[in-house]
Amino acid sequence: MTEFELIRRYFTERQPPQAYVPLGIGDDCALMSARAGMQLAVSSDMLVEGRHFFAGADARMLGHKALAVNLSDLAAMGAEPRAFTLALALPEAREDWLQEFSQGLFDLAQRHGCQLIGGDTTRGPLTISITVLGEVAPALALRRDAGRPGDDLWVSGELGDARLALAGYLQQQVLPASEQEQSGMRMHMPLPRVQLGLALRGIAHAAIDISDGLAGDLKHVLHRSGLGATLWCDSIPVGAVLAKQDRRLQREFCLSGGDDYELCFSAPAAHRAAVLAAAQQAATPVSRIGYLETTPGLRIVDAQDQLQFFQLSSFDHFIS
Amino acid sequence: MTEFELIRRYFTERQPPQAYVPLGIGDDCALMSARAGMQLAVSSDMLVEGRHFFAGADARMLGHKALAVNLSDLAAMGAEPRAFTLALALPEAREDWLQEFSQGLFDLAQRHGCQLIGGDTTRGPLTISITVLGEVAPALALRRDAGRPGDDLWVSGELGDARLALAGYLQQQVLPASEQEQSGMRMHMPLPRVQLGLALRGIAHAAIDISDGLAGDLKHVLHRSGLGATLWCDSIPVGAVLAKQDRRLQREFCLSGGDDYELCFSAPAAHRAAVLAAAQQAATPVSRIGYLETTPGLRIVDAQDQLQFFQLSSFDHFIS
Repeated sequence: MTEFELIRRYFTERQPPQAYVPLGIGDDCALMSARAGMQLAVSSDMLVEGRHFFAGADARMLGHKALAVNLSDLAAMGAEPRAFTLALALPEAREDWLQEFSQGLFDLAQRHGCQLIGGDTTRGPLTISITVLGEVAPALALRRDAGRPGDDLWVSGELGDARLALAGYLQQQVLPASEQEQSGMRMHMPLPRVQLGLALRGIAHAAIDISDGLAGDLKHVLHRSGLGATLWCDSIPVGAVLAKQDRRLQREFCLSGGDDYELCFSAPAAHRAAVLAAAQQAATPVSRIGYLETTPGLRIVDAQDQLQFFQLSSFDHFIS
Repeated sequence: MTEFELIRRYFTERQPPQAYVPLGIGDDCALMSARAGMQLAVSSDMLVEGRHFFAGADARMLGHKALAVNLSDLAAMGAEPRAFTLALALPEAREDWLQEFSQGLFDLAQRHGCQLIGGDTTRGPLTISITVLGEVAPALALRRDAGRPGDDLWVSGELGDARLALAGYLQQQVLPASEQEQSGMRMHMPLPRVQLGLALRGIAHAAIDISDGLAGDLKHVLHRSGLGATLWCDSIPVGAVLAKQDRRLQREFCLSGGDDYELCFSAPAAHRAAVLAAAQQAATPVSRIGYLETTPGLRIVDAQDQLQFFQLSSFDHFIS
């Protein structure tokens, strides 16, 4: 099987054509039409075997996750998914693996109307690099620098189960098989909160997706918005599996666990009803977990309003 | 040095802001404005150590080449470079390497007004994945399927020196040091023919950039245009170093050598003067090397119009 047959079989011939993609895979570039007056939202994420996923990871779930983490970036911008490119380095062209990987990828892509428009395949250590393109009206993007003092802080879904699953795989925690499996699904099959991001346009101010841990990711919003925050650690919604662990671990994994791909966003207090309505429209639960303020720094307090201190480290690929 | 410091130091703080990038690096997505009525041209290429470049390759030349091969795809579309994303897997965050790599990257990016708007850095086997975004007016894109019977076939620059350099490095050919160095520059520092691609809008029909060998890449144009071609193998411009080798090797490397990143394009015979004017405007030599015809297949003939047969193989990462 040549590179071109490989591309055609698993990646080209599986998608219905979209009017906004006048030229898809098969030329030097794809051509895409942007709607008048819309801005393009662009993000790239790379997943490396042994770093972002285990060797031998399930190919279908990997296809899902590789696109999901990119769609999550569009969600955090309030952008509508339109298209993506895929650069894929593979140690070998195994048809069963490609079949499963592309299935997981396209299942998610089609759910969000996001068209594969190009890319590259090469032999090499298993590496998946995706660039997503979305559209958002200029004034409606949920930028990290858009937080305002007094904004409520919200988070979608539940946190920490993905981090618990990782602890199980790494044998830092002993988990019953059923709990390992259930939390593992949160790690392998994150649901990008695209509908919520879209529903929050014009309602929320700042947003970020939680990939490296709530506390660390929230600090990016604080830094870019020039603000501080108070976070109620006992108001953070805890994943169903993690909820069976002790309180200390719950707090730690909710605050610093990665791979949640939930949205953390700020919105004015006057928009509380609108936030809840948007969440309902997007069929995505949201929880209010604190507020932005002018005092710099991140203060984490418990239900008794007592300041809590954590030794938290956001995930970093190059700490030296 | 954390991942964020790394990104900031070498990739964020080096570029003057562009009006069409209202939000650059540092949010979940970058935001980019497309000009009204323009289509977006998108391409992704991935370079893997040991596959596309040797281990220990010069970092500055690598930064240049990683972007150059992507800009070459925009050139082959007649698209104007606007922005790019960079996903970079590195075995370690070595500052001297990053300094050189980013210098090579930005030197070329700034020459073409192409802004780095986002990306990802991670630890992993050295892999560089770039997605470029350009703009082109809908009717002016140089598509592979736009060839017409009777079109002249043209190629820019000279071919084969990059392939000769590779043969030298692999000790398939013995080259004097000065020739190895001179041809090596063609392999490591390809010049994307962006200005030529832009100048050919409205003049050329089909175009492709030669990354995997002229004959193989031309076949993509023939396939997509539903045509055949006659190619004059003795009219192909031979690289200055390769020209010192025997005629057989010259033909082979010109026809099937990769890494040239010249443009092969078709244009109606009535546009010959316009093609030459465009080439002059772009300060890029072009040569007429054959013509498109309705008879399927690629016929390679010599200066005496005798059909030549070559055992040519276009480069393929997954031939099995």
